[in-house]
Amino acid sequence: MMVKSSLDPKRSLPHHVELNLGDKTMERSLLGLYAMNGGKGANSYAQNSSYQRGVVDAAKPLIEAEIATKLDTKQLSSTHTTPFRIADFGCSTGHNSFPAIQIITEAVERKLQTQAQIPDFHVFFNDQVMNDFNTLFHSLPPQRNYHAAGVPGPFHGRLLPNASIDFAYSSCALNWLSEVPKAVADYRSPAWNNGKVHYTGARKEVFEAYSNHYANDIESFLKARAEELVNGGLMALLVPAVPTFENPGTSYTTPTEMDLIGSCLVDMAKKGILSEEKVDTFNFPLYFTIPQELKAIIERNHSFSIERMEILNNPGKRTLTSASARATYLRAVFEGLLINHFGTEIMDELFDRYTEKLAASPLFLDPDNEKSIIIFVLLKRKEV
Amino acid sequence: MMVKSSLDPKRSLPHHVELNLGDKTMERSLLGLYAMNGGKGANSYAQNSSYQRGVVDAAKPLIEAEIATKLDTKQLSSTHTTPFRIADFGCSTGHNSFPAIQIITEAVERKLQTQAQIPDFHVFFNDQVMNDFNTLFHSLPPQRNYHAAGVPGPFHGRLLPNASIDFAYSSCALNWLSEVPKAVADYRSPAWNNGKVHYTGARKEVFEAYSNHYANDIESFLKARAEELVNGGLMALLVPAVPTFENPGTSYTTPTEMDLIGSCLVDMAKKGILSEEKVDTFNFPLYFTIPQELKAIIERNHSFSIERMEILNNPGKRTLTSASARATYLRAVFEGLLINHFGTEIMDELFDRYTEKLAASPLFLDPDNEKSIIIFVLLKRKEV
Repeated sequence: MMVKSSLDPKRSLPHHVELNLGDKTMERSLLGLYAMNGGKGANSYAQNSSYQRGVVDAAKPLIEAEIATKLDTKQLSSTHTTPFRIADFGCSTGHNSFPAIQIITEAVERKLQTQAQIPDFHVFFNDQVMNDFNTLFHSLPPQRNYHAAGVPGPFHGRLLPNASIDFAYSSCALNWLSEVPKAVADYRSPAWNNGKVHYTGARKEVFEAYSNHYANDIESFLKARAEELVNGGLMALLVPAVPTFENPGTSYTTPTEMDLIGSCLVDMAKKGILSEEKVDTFNFPLYFTIPQELKAIIERNHSFSIERMEILNNPGKRTLTSASARATYLRAVFEGLLINHFGTEIMDELFDRYTEKLAASPLFLDPDNEKSIIIFVLLKRKEV
Repeated sequence: MMVKSSLDPKRSLPHHVELNLGDKTMERSLLGLYAMNGGKGANSYAQNSSYQRGVVDAAKPLIEAEIATKLDTKQLSSTHTTPFRIADFGCSTGHNSFPAIQIITEAVERKLQTQAQIPDFHVFFNDQVMNDFNTLFHSLPPQRNYHAAGVPGPFHGRLLPNASIDFAYSSCALNWLSEVPKAVADYRSPAWNNGKVHYTGARKEVFEAYSNHYANDIESFLKARAEELVNGGLMALLVPAVPTFENPGTSYTTPTEMDLIGSCLVDMAKKGILSEEKVDTFNFPLYFTIPQELKAIIERNHSFSIERMEILNNPGKRTLTSASARATYLRAVFEGLLINHFGTEIMDELFDRYTEKLAASPLFLDPDNEKSIIIFVLLKRKEV
């Protein structure tokens, strides 16, 4: 039955699809086993990403200024019959990607108008294979000034042809690791992270495993983009981060909230709702860097020059003002990942408990205590 | 609820999604209100397109020969640092597109090996916005020798930047009209097609409305592709067709089968299962041309030269040997369209009736009586 097959949850839920790609040598992690919640429903990422939209708005003047001053129109004018190609790495279902692309294309148009060039824009929307591209495509602005294409696959590897992209962009995506560091889920390892689901407050070895993995992932990302960008091409990155790895007792950051989800899972294990082993084998594949660390990683890659690096002071933090709004936001982002490991059954209880813990904590409900930051980096592909 | 929203049939069934694109001036038909059945279930297009796979196999030696002789490597060698771009227009969920792309990329590689060029392939998979791109992306061959991108939108309009495609391909897709000709659904028109759902055996005015619409659609397709293809670029088309518009009594074609579906709908209207008005307002947006007609349309467009035109004698007809297999095949192709108009409820009965009518007809069960053809055309973009 057609209708039954379409309603099969394995097909409908992006994170539930069983991948059978035939290639046993391919790393499971590279297939992209997590994605933001798809569709447009109450718990969808599309309905719960006003935080990330705030980031786009805060970055707008910076992107516009950088395109106006740093875009190499001489190089473009030599090939002005070819389209201007833009790629967004980690676009999810497009809700916050479309306004960012509009900012970029309009800034490029303004810059090129002085040369009487009207470029044909080609925009590539990338996210994991598990991403809900059907929703992305249905949501494309009908009046857009560009040709659109979807690019499925992990952005830690190559996705596009050599020297084909003029402007790369990635917002609120580079905090995702390609996978959980293997050592933290291995009970024989000194980095085994038992009784916790993230590195906050965990042993030094756990943090180091995450930190090393992050450096490798960002290096892979930069290597792939260096190959895909044209000489002189620009790349704007908006990277979720923290100001420092040590939180004072009066502040919290996104990792603190992940730790709070972890404590709810531990509570549920203690009550026998799920097994301790299930909690011990789960870890969030996320890492929040600090500006100095990110700068050092980028500088180790010699293909890019850092044209601008700036801290955006948590531009989206005023968008989530209640415990339930915060909980729904984290649910839209993390549910796919959690369902993959724990199943759908415990999700309602988990996020109910999380909402309660948040509401009980005055620390969490005052946005001024939220110290997460966004690092804005504008990179330029060096001439080869 | 995330799970509930994902299971919402409006989201899961591509042909059920309510589009709200905000642009009221945009023609409803251009949004692509039909698509092959998605997913990989029993009635999916992926599981019921062995006929179309037969077409790809039959076209293989022709495509290989044309690429070997007609691909302009001199022009390519002048820009050998740029990727070789291929687009498939009407790819559905990819099942038959992937082998075709493999044939094309391998033939291009063989041709270019002699020049010691190794091109970076970029392949664009196009189909209607309603197409199930999630299934397409999950089905991509993991060992592919190309970068993949999905391109949503109707191929009767522009989809890709100017002069950006080196090789275009379309198989078993150009028989779909952009929409049902308006006159055949208008009771005030002399072309009103009451009591029928297609032009077979209908009044001359009905046929002419279809025929004119087809010519306009193919002209729009060729105009868009002429803009997208590079000078000297090749385009291989595999067009479902009939040898002549008049069937002898001992043969049948795909339009005959659509007429048979129509007779089942009329029977159901007579029994009161659905209203006559519902049947009168439904028409299949499909047209099966004849070689002379297609040739004349292409020649009216002066951007392409016809390098080869050949009739493939229904290469897939041996693949469907039972009434139920034929019925399931047509269901995978037409069900989205039928559900859009009649709802899901009558689908099982409709295709049960159809299977019975087929099984009762010895004419339909002997594949030798099937006279549908595929027209292979190889076009070359003239130098501007």
